[in-house]
Amino acid sequence: MTKLKIIQNKENKVEKIQSFNSILKWLNEDIDKVNSLVLSNMSSKVPLISQLAGYIISSGGKRIRPILTLATSKLCKYSGERHINLAAAIEFIHTATLLHDDVVDESNLRRGQKSANVVWDNKSSILVGDFLLSKAFRLMIKDGSNRCLDALSKASVEISQGEVLQLLTNNNIQTSETKYLEVINAKTAELFAAACVISGIISEVGKQKEIALYEFGKNLGMSFQIVDDTLDYFSKDLSFGKNKGDDFKEGKVSIPIILAYRRSNFEEKKFWSRVINEKEQNSKDLGTALEIIKKYNVISDCLKKAKYFALIAKDSLGSFENSFEKEKLIDITDFSVNRIF
Amino acid sequence: MTKLKIIQNKENKVEKIQSFNSILKWLNEDIDKVNSLVLSNMSSKVPLISQLAGYIISSGGKRIRPILTLATSKLCKYSGERHINLAAAIEFIHTATLLHDDVVDESNLRRGQKSANVVWDNKSSILVGDFLLSKAFRLMIKDGSNRCLDALSKASVEISQGEVLQLLTNNNIQTSETKYLEVINAKTAELFAAACVISGIISEVGKQKEIALYEFGKNLGMSFQIVDDTLDYFSKDLSFGKNKGDDFKEGKVSIPIILAYRRSNFEEKKFWSRVINEKEQNSKDLGTALEIIKKYNVISDCLKKAKYFALIAKDSLGSFENSFEKEKLIDITDFSVNRIF
Repeated sequence: MTKLKIIQNKENKVEKIQSFNSILKWLNEDIDKVNSLVLSNMSSKVPLISQLAGYIISSGGKRIRPILTLATSKLCKYSGERHINLAAAIEFIHTATLLHDDVVDESNLRRGQKSANVVWDNKSSILVGDFLLSKAFRLMIKDGSNRCLDALSKASVEISQGEVLQLLTNNNIQTSETKYLEVINAKTAELFAAACVISGIISEVGKQKEIALYEFGKNLGMSFQIVDDTLDYFSKDLSFGKNKGDDFKEGKVSIPIILAYRRSNFEEKKFWSRVINEKEQNSKDLGTALEIIKKYNVISDCLKKAKYFALIAKDSLGSFENSFEKEKLIDITDFSVNRIF
Repeated sequence: MTKLKIIQNKENKVEKIQSFNSILKWLNEDIDKVNSLVLSNMSSKVPLISQLAGYIISSGGKRIRPILTLATSKLCKYSGERHINLAAAIEFIHTATLLHDDVVDESNLRRGQKSANVVWDNKSSILVGDFLLSKAFRLMIKDGSNRCLDALSKASVEISQGEVLQLLTNNNIQTSETKYLEVINAKTAELFAAACVISGIISEVGKQKEIALYEFGKNLGMSFQIVDDTLDYFSKDLSFGKNKGDDFKEGKVSIPIILAYRRSNFEEKKFWSRVINEKEQNSKDLGTALEIIKKYNVISDCLKKAKYFALIAKDSLGSFENSFEKEKLIDITDFSVNRIF
């Protein structure tokens, strides 16, 4: 890659981050409150816990899940403070998952930084993940709404089921697209849906709008995860972000290679079997994978699938009157499909 | 060990189990209900989860924590069904901890059977642990009492903090007895205390008796863990139970070797530093450790400490009128100190 291209990519990223930040400007006050609450709740009498939790929480995630709670609360004209607490709880559930994910996936990078299991170790990551999950429940319980607790604990059960299901699809290139959708529905979309539906619960908007919020979150989550999995192959030569090609090296069977495998000829199918099912990879294999992906126009089709779900998400908001907040949620949805990080 | 001694030990164990079972006879109906609820809640749409959860849950633990909830509920003359749900939740929290513990400790045996991380793998154990913890919260939420949720979620946070604290004392033979007590207080005694206090909450026995129940559970938990840690050195040559000497091999610094180290002479201290701090162990070292432990009468002093806490536990029950149930709780406490498994 030329130096110029790297600079262009970096500029592109800066621009995208700026555009994301400007979409979120109207939420800044609430985002600050969530950040303070997150910081104060990750403190522990055991310094290692505070340090490790602080490391992953401040490692520059997009905070899309708590942001959804904040934004949908505004859409519902919610005027209290409960959404802050609940948004923080959601970020804790998510962060606990990330810590355990990195151990399970044996990852060494997260968001361009060394992952916590590398800076500390697997043991600490497992136990601090447990701490954060328990803290998440403490925060939810503080809120006191049984319906919110129900929605979020259901999502938490689903996430763990999705993660196990994903484990079972790893290194199986024959995994069907349906099975993949089932995995990301459980591991990602359920928490997105819960993040949105709780705003409806605390705002008492009624059943119909609650369903709309749930559908919005669910479909945005599907779209978000498809983009995430696609970026792992798409922006592999950019000089930032997560460890590109990681999914490939781990033998994780996500949508780009599911499509690529199905469109491959006999020789190419043998390649996929070797690198994914038999875990035999050499230094050139990621390049070959990317060539096959390019040959069959996979990236563009993956993004089309992401857009399919994003469109359902946006139309779900039809139950709400047009408003500034609705526009912003549509912007967030568009951003999540067009993002490059 | 002679064949006769093995047979005697086995008979001794059978006798002890029988005595434990007879202590619990009055709770059998409730125990059956808890077992059914546990079984129905560990089922998942992902078969691996049901299998792995079923494996560890039915691997013959003593179920002391849920039993405490059942027994203290009876002490409080509770007449409803909420204690069943809450007892199951407690067993789930505990089981989640065991799964993660075995990964963190790199154990290969649990209760005389291969541990789940060996039968399956670390990844599955981590994720199924998350599933069980989330399920525990689902069960508590179903109960609907915010005070119970508060007590149990607080215990769950404490457990993870205790586990991290324990990690930090591993391979440090200089760990103080105070630090050790802090670890077991967090990782074990808090959940015992919560298991008892929730009975007071659902029975509405009032603040004073709630405190008594909390103190009972807390001190019984301390006693229970001290015995557990002592058994790891005491019954090492019995032909059943957990992997004897495991704590030693893992460099876990528990009460027997804390005492032994402090009583050791210069040469013996050098031995402890080598095997625990520097993790340099050979096949004879466990034998040497046991000799030093014997020389300084450590086992008997550990059991005295366990009895110290057991006595506080029993006296805590002074807030309750004498009753059949109170007698049984005292029997359970005595059993937990005198047990050999």
